[in-house]
Amino acid sequence: MSKRMGRQTVRCGFPPSIYTSYCIAGKKEGEGPLGAFFDEINEDARFGEDTWEKAESTLVKNTICGLLEKSGLTQDEIDYITAGDLLNQCSGSHFAIRSFGIPFFGLYGACSTMAESMSVAAMLVDGGFASKVIAATSSHFCASEKQYRFPLEYGGQRTPTAQWTVTGSGAVVIGKTSAPPYITHITTGKIIDKGITDPNNMGAAMAPAAADTILAHFDDTGFSPEEYDLIITGDLGKTGSNIFNELLKKEGLDIEKRHMDCGTEIFDHSQDAHAGGSGCGCSAVTFCGKIMKDLQDKKINNVLFMATGALMNPTSSLQGESIPSIAHALRITNQGGNV
Amino acid sequence: MSKRMGRQTVRCGFPPSIYTSYCIAGKKEGEGPLGAFFDEINEDARFGEDTWEKAESTLVKNTICGLLEKSGLTQDEIDYITAGDLLNQCSGSHFAIRSFGIPFFGLYGACSTMAESMSVAAMLVDGGFASKVIAATSSHFCASEKQYRFPLEYGGQRTPTAQWTVTGSGAVVIGKTSAPPYITHITTGKIIDKGITDPNNMGAAMAPAAADTILAHFDDTGFSPEEYDLIITGDLGKTGSNIFNELLKKEGLDIEKRHMDCGTEIFDHSQDAHAGGSGCGCSAVTFCGKIMKDLQDKKINNVLFMATGALMNPTSSLQGESIPSIAHALRITNQGGNV
Repeated sequence: MSKRMGRQTVRCGFPPSIYTSYCIAGKKEGEGPLGAFFDEINEDARFGEDTWEKAESTLVKNTICGLLEKSGLTQDEIDYITAGDLLNQCSGSHFAIRSFGIPFFGLYGACSTMAESMSVAAMLVDGGFASKVIAATSSHFCASEKQYRFPLEYGGQRTPTAQWTVTGSGAVVIGKTSAPPYITHITTGKIIDKGITDPNNMGAAMAPAAADTILAHFDDTGFSPEEYDLIITGDLGKTGSNIFNELLKKEGLDIEKRHMDCGTEIFDHSQDAHAGGSGCGCSAVTFCGKIMKDLQDKKINNVLFMATGALMNPTSSLQGESIPSIAHALRITNQGGNV
Repeated sequence: MSKRMGRQTVRCGFPPSIYTSYCIAGKKEGEGPLGAFFDEINEDARFGEDTWEKAESTLVKNTICGLLEKSGLTQDEIDYITAGDLLNQCSGSHFAIRSFGIPFFGLYGACSTMAESMSVAAMLVDGGFASKVIAATSSHFCASEKQYRFPLEYGGQRTPTAQWTVTGSGAVVIGKTSAPPYITHITTGKIIDKGITDPNNMGAAMAPAAADTILAHFDDTGFSPEEYDLIITGDLGKTGSNIFNELLKKEGLDIEKRHMDCGTEIFDHSQDAHAGGSGCGCSAVTFCGKIMKDLQDKKINNVLFMATGALMNPTSSLQGESIPSIAHALRITNQGGNV
């Protein structure tokens, strides 16, 4: 039986497995340090479509098709899909998923969506509502720039704290099997807003949310950082990661040696991505590519995967509002589980 | 123990109660046929704020505060909030919910969000992850017109099939108690797209999704329409309701006498709302106001509550895309339950 632990965490009664992952990344991401870990790298930013929005939907559709093929599963064997993305009204996911005929829960957690969709998927399985659930998300650099910032043709200057939206989509099948890795604990974030108003510094806005969730996770579970081989944040980037580690040190917690940020890892310095990668796709392809491979190869055995999201929109920023943020965390382990 | 029934339905093992509801509606909605059922009617469309977007957030915040007060609960007693809305990146919900400090799952299901948030909330409770969850949603006429159609000042003409976005927010507390009504069955929609491209005729786009979900519900559960005192659709409006009933008759199912559409009920003919009300708030205030009162008064004892959503965005429509839609259904009953 699942069990609540403190304010924000549940322990799964019968920890679900993540038994397949699949991810597709764009050309720039493929040229970065994680390129070797992606299932597919697509050289064509348009994915064969005539608009950036349709390109993102095709990216998601191809990712789910790839996942099903890699899993040896048909769409009829999947009980639910949980997914969302950054496009207005999550249209990237909807236009992709309409062709699958699978019961669907649409989610919005900005760049925290991979952790949110995995949390809900794991609960659907552990709660006995499903045997197999696909959790997915995506982002596309060109579609995001157009919607959130400037038309690409404008060639706008980027600030040093700005991040580069990853073109990529990741998806996992979560279900009841005896194969590791397992999702054992789910710590769900609260919305935290410390008054940051600069949409070109989302790392600073999200860092307090990440700190809040990880402190809740340790508080609720009694774990210490030593429990984990790796503590993974979604896309704080360089600026946000520094703030995150500083905030934790003020609370007497030093996780710096075990900390890895997907936004910091996905591009290298030569790729001109400023403070790092961002977008739902950033933590999605890093998790579905590198982290899953390292878990399966037993290079690492216990991770805390915590994706972070900035919950503003362009209108709220123009109206001078600050940036509410959230972080959702999952403990993922090769040990124990439902064997 | 919860049980899957067929492709899209689960039966709750220990049916959660909806034990409080609260709703706030705007002036026009208050003047309509359901005015007497709303907990609050707000005469000021700005809700004391200086922008429509902030007005919607204040509406949601006031609704949740009202719900907590009516329930005699504090925010610390609520394990999760599940919510979303029509504003880009669901900002209506985020700016409202940031002040509560409650673990949050953001959802996007367009106008199906009330049924989606209640579905996820009920599963969190029935799966043993939570004792009490708030499910909420909202919409605001002025914020929606600005974002989806034209600036209000433009005074755009509306087509006969167009619907009027309801200004309103509804929220429920779902939890483990012995007080009816109970949520016993949850039928989760698939995304259905029959090729309708006119964003001024969302009823036509959503009707096939509603038909698909209700057929799945009867197929999965073995129930017949006679099971229900009332079969409630979200906001098909007059045009969509006619198509919905026609589609079902073609499948040999006549539910017309038991069918009620929130979009058709919320305004009367004199209110110039054309095909009826729409928006997440439409089914939210109708359910949280009228339906919950009628259930509590035992005027009705068994309902199927099915909210419908059109999952396009303005960009996809301008790009000539059709409108993917979804409908989520819950069986809500005064009988049985977890006594």
